[in-house]
Amino acid sequence: MADPTPRIVDLSQHVGKTITVRGWVTHVRSSGKVAFAVIRDGTGIVQAVFVKTQLPPEVWERFKDLTLETSVHVTGEVRAEPRAPGSHELGVTGLTIIGPSPIDYPIQPKEHGIDFLLDNRHFWLRSNRVRAIFSIRNEIEQAIHDFFYARGFLRIDTPILTAAIGERSGLFSTEYFDEGNAYLAQTGQLYGEAAAAAFGSIYTFGPTFRAEKSKTRRHLTEFWMIEPEVAWNDSADNMRLQEDFVSYLVERCLERRAAELRELERDTAPLERVKPPFHRVNYTEAVEILQKRGSSITWGDDLGAEDEALLVSEYDRPVFVMNYPKEAKAFYMKENPEDPRTVLCDDCLAPEGYGEIIGGSQREDDYDRLLHRINEEGLPVDAYGWYLDLRKYGTFVHSGFGLGLERTVAWICGLPHIREVIAFPRMMHRLKP
Amino acid sequence: MADPTPRIVDLSQHVGKTITVRGWVTHVRSSGKVAFAVIRDGTGIVQAVFVKTQLPPEVWERFKDLTLETSVHVTGEVRAEPRAPGSHELGVTGLTIIGPSPIDYPIQPKEHGIDFLLDNRHFWLRSNRVRAIFSIRNEIEQAIHDFFYARGFLRIDTPILTAAIGERSGLFSTEYFDEGNAYLAQTGQLYGEAAAAAFGSIYTFGPTFRAEKSKTRRHLTEFWMIEPEVAWNDSADNMRLQEDFVSYLVERCLERRAAELRELERDTAPLERVKPPFHRVNYTEAVEILQKRGSSITWGDDLGAEDEALLVSEYDRPVFVMNYPKEAKAFYMKENPEDPRTVLCDDCLAPEGYGEIIGGSQREDDYDRLLHRINEEGLPVDAYGWYLDLRKYGTFVHSGFGLGLERTVAWICGLPHIREVIAFPRMMHRLKP
Repeated sequence: MADPTPRIVDLSQHVGKTITVRGWVTHVRSSGKVAFAVIRDGTGIVQAVFVKTQLPPEVWERFKDLTLETSVHVTGEVRAEPRAPGSHELGVTGLTIIGPSPIDYPIQPKEHGIDFLLDNRHFWLRSNRVRAIFSIRNEIEQAIHDFFYARGFLRIDTPILTAAIGERSGLFSTEYFDEGNAYLAQTGQLYGEAAAAAFGSIYTFGPTFRAEKSKTRRHLTEFWMIEPEVAWNDSADNMRLQEDFVSYLVERCLERRAAELRELERDTAPLERVKPPFHRVNYTEAVEILQKRGSSITWGDDLGAEDEALLVSEYDRPVFVMNYPKEAKAFYMKENPEDPRTVLCDDCLAPEGYGEIIGGSQREDDYDRLLHRINEEGLPVDAYGWYLDLRKYGTFVHSGFGLGLERTVAWICGLPHIREVIAFPRMMHRLKP
Repeated sequence: MADPTPRIVDLSQHVGKTITVRGWVTHVRSSGKVAFAVIRDGTGIVQAVFVKTQLPPEVWERFKDLTLETSVHVTGEVRAEPRAPGSHELGVTGLTIIGPSPIDYPIQPKEHGIDFLLDNRHFWLRSNRVRAIFSIRNEIEQAIHDFFYARGFLRIDTPILTAAIGERSGLFSTEYFDEGNAYLAQTGQLYGEAAAAAFGSIYTFGPTFRAEKSKTRRHLTEFWMIEPEVAWNDSADNMRLQEDFVSYLVERCLERRAAELRELERDTAPLERVKPPFHRVNYTEAVEILQKRGSSITWGDDLGAEDEALLVSEYDRPVFVMNYPKEAKAFYMKENPEDPRTVLCDDCLAPEGYGEIIGGSQREDDYDRLLHRINEEGLPVDAYGWYLDLRKYGTFVHSGFGLGLERTVAWICGLPHIREVIAFPRMMHRLKP
């Protein structure tokens, strides 16, 4: 009996059987007596073979209506065929057209510009290449949850709508009933710290927002971030957690998404080297190294993208740049007792020039110092009352970090632009579809 | 040698050893020669026992400084003690106070009003009861990902910032550069449908927003939703997926969060009965049943909360109410061929009066019918161009649903109000902390 609903990815289990595949036509060709249609169902592709002499004339005739993205039910016997796209063939015995597709289907087998592809993102998603990317993104997301679940972290969903946090730039705002404006969260960290005091080890996973007029290949206005926060971890513990975490994500993709990495023609050798310990270099050292190599950076500057690339080119795996100048970093980072010009923090730079994927720090746990920094930055103390409370009642050493999901996926996939690794990217000039 | 960093939840592995616990004081009492402090570290609680005659005088004296939420490192020998809170004791040999806690700590061991507790949510999170709730929420979230990962679904993160979708009510809006207003997503479904055509089976998991002046115990302005969408599933397949999914979530909590359900005094008998198949009743039937029981509902009305409670009281497990009148439901639902006044949809009602946790439907896959419905609702056809495209090029039978995370967690925990099951709830009058 025909199994009515196998997925193409599972066809190897059905060799010799007659089944019905449901999907979309991605490619057709015909040699007069034999015709081929490649069918895609979202899990894989299979080649359907139509032999004129073996088919009822109406089925053979129907083949002519198979335009790009026509949706179909195709019945036939499954054969292993290593030379065929997808490594299996269907010897067709029946064909039903479910949804015709006009011949002006926007994405044709030719080169299209990036703006056109993004305008047609709802169709562009259907390509093999995009499927490989989202299969890897999915693997990474599941690996993130598995990593923290196994370690007893609680996932905390921190709010997107947040109250006044001062006149900081780059915020999207919306009217919130009679409460004034609400601002879309740029981070869940401050809430994560409150949760770490309650639950020990936590992480957040959610969208974050930046209303910045940035048009680089590494910025989106809406992107997803993972932010663990751990009570009693100092900065050194924090980096050990980061290297274990990043290594695990890479290892999962190498183990379970090898086919997709091949589809993307990703050289996996640099990924194989991503294992703890990562390299560690102090900011002050990094500046000296960069200056020797011709960078014009001076002590106190943040590292630019070019500096990052120059620095990592020395190393065979990710690099932590530690303990930046206070002025270059956020107010909540803990002063470095060994060099009070700096704070206890790290940026994790991916290899191969992919740049920063993590920013982490030990948090300032001293009430007076934190209050001083809030005032120094001109932030409204009132809005930070509850955050200061965490230092007033039973303060605690704690650290955490934020990993940018899209940057991490782009790096692992080997893609230069993060707009390709999120389903419907949001950028300064792009709000649709 | 002392293991410096065990977690309280793991103390049973350290019985007989001397260790240091890091955490916060939640309770103290003293009888003059023996004193007790209950310590919380976010993973559990342990009772620290101070015996005057066995301690250096300065350690004994230091006990007096242990106010509520003082953070400490306590060193001592681990003993099993079934009568102690947490079932273990530490025979204290050393105590370091890390962060003192002023005696005005806001949450004291007495009754507080809900508004006070919500104003102090950053502290309220620290209670045993809240920890049990978030441990269950975490279990449910992980179970969601595990369920779909095992079935080959791809998780798709759909955008929060979306372009004009007409003058619908209840939308938060924000200026988006030169692109006009962006609106915070109420659902990821439409994007999920595009992704289902690309990847077959997908789900979204993210925050959704409703700017509604609703003050019921079942509404938040920001809440998390899970929205699977499956190519080639019809409405019946859709309900089978829903009952398998919901049953799995409940089963995971029963198996792995029994202690937390006990902490919440949840009667688990009704949860044990949550197994497929759920009950199925047509809307039209449901109206007749309700009328017989005294409801004033008439055909065409949506079911109110009281109607839902009245209906489920008949059944021992969740109930699908199927095929509502077209007017009561969204424009994208597929017309029911057996009764064109209705659409192919279902609401899944949780038992025990917890009400709707899922809304699902087969989607209209006919271009002309969908266009007609968009016009009928007065929606801007332009904004739905890409959505209509999915029906124009290779349309396909597909179905999906949305499960409200907070409603599901509240039901499984046995809590009447969903504001307790999200870390920092957002309601009409609440945007802080």
